[in-house]
Amino acid sequence: MENYRIIEVKQSIFDDNDKDANLLREKMKEEKTFLMNLMSSPGAGKTTTLKGTLNALKDDLKIGVMEADIDSDVDAATISELGVKTIQLHTGGMCHLDADMTRQGVTNLGTEDLDLVILENVGNLVCPAEFDTGAAMNAMILSVPEGHDKPLKYPLVFQVCDVLIINKIDVLPYFDFDMDKVKEYALMRNPNLKIFPISAKTGEGMEAWTSYLKERVESYIK
Amino acid sequence: MENYRIIEVKQSIFDDNDKDANLLREKMKEEKTFLMNLMSSPGAGKTTTLKGTLNALKDDLKIGVMEADIDSDVDAATISELGVKTIQLHTGGMCHLDADMTRQGVTNLGTEDLDLVILENVGNLVCPAEFDTGAAMNAMILSVPEGHDKPLKYPLVFQVCDVLIINKIDVLPYFDFDMDKVKEYALMRNPNLKIFPISAKTGEGMEAWTSYLKERVESYIK
Repeated sequence: MENYRIIEVKQSIFDDNDKDANLLREKMKEEKTFLMNLMSSPGAGKTTTLKGTLNALKDDLKIGVMEADIDSDVDAATISELGVKTIQLHTGGMCHLDADMTRQGVTNLGTEDLDLVILENVGNLVCPAEFDTGAAMNAMILSVPEGHDKPLKYPLVFQVCDVLIINKIDVLPYFDFDMDKVKEYALMRNPNLKIFPISAKTGEGMEAWTSYLKERVESYIK
Repeated sequence: MENYRIIEVKQSIFDDNDKDANLLREKMKEEKTFLMNLMSSPGAGKTTTLKGTLNALKDDLKIGVMEADIDSDVDAATISELGVKTIQLHTGGMCHLDADMTRQGVTNLGTEDLDLVILENVGNLVCPAEFDTGAAMNAMILSVPEGHDKPLKYPLVFQVCDVLIINKIDVLPYFDFDMDKVKEYALMRNPNLKIFPISAKTGEGMEAWTSYLKERVESYIK
């Protein structure tokens, strides 16, 4: 018996995602639960970064995780092993979560007693950026092997995020990745973006990121 | 003055993509032009692989390229430098191309005199897999840094492809990537998948892939 459930979330039949997102954001604010939406390409390291983040913060904050995926549950299995309250959301082929799908997840997870809920969105730089989930904060991961030109090619996701985590800096020597250029391009899209270069594998840079997240959560829920 | 044009493609107002796809496939077959649809995540190396493929085949085949992107034209600029007939398709925010958008591209490129047209789809493993573009062959690139579990998490794209190119094998020593497992998982999705491990950067493995493509095109157009 697995220690997480799988929820099939259905796309809303109503067509006002922004309204749904604002309603969910207000509800979470009242509950004093900080909802973070984490986006990236497939394979950028969302799950590994999440594991490192949970290990750093799970003694200080009450955390829940919603893993969204087309139809697998490999991520929920990995995360639930850390002893964190976890559910797997299945999008039924959908390439993103909208606010109502997120609300279904929140309801199923049960978030009243939680300080922080992290939604790991479907691996995709395009569609998730177009749908406000109702989160208090959007974060994205770009990994070194993907290349420093991505803010030029996928502008919207950089624009809607508060935080850019640049993962896999341990392999910087093996790729033509220009850290100054990626920062310049990303800040062109969004001058307020907080940027954290990390290696989820070696742990380098994780402290700066997790301290920042902890502060954001604590100031939100107090 | 750039040596490529930018075309804004519009989503079809009709809702029968499979019919549109079959019509386009028949038209291309009559014209003896082989249309290949190339899919991958952002940053897997579609453009670099395409450059290597074009350099290997452009003396033997008449080739055209359609670069699809949300709204940049960095790829068309790169490809057109090789002296290959190129257009940039802008999807206006859409995360994939459907068959009618592909037809608009084909019409604008002018394909009657071409043996091979390569469509570089939007960087996304989810949505492009759901829409038949009318191509004679679907190929995808998975890169080593993305991880060997991707056929478990994004099953459909592996299922609809004829060819899986595994790129960036030059960095295999720096990642926990199990080549046997990725092949096993990918073949579970599609037992007929042809798999080519390559490094577009060093050229390793490129000859096997480009020879295979050349044979496929030649047997189709003769």
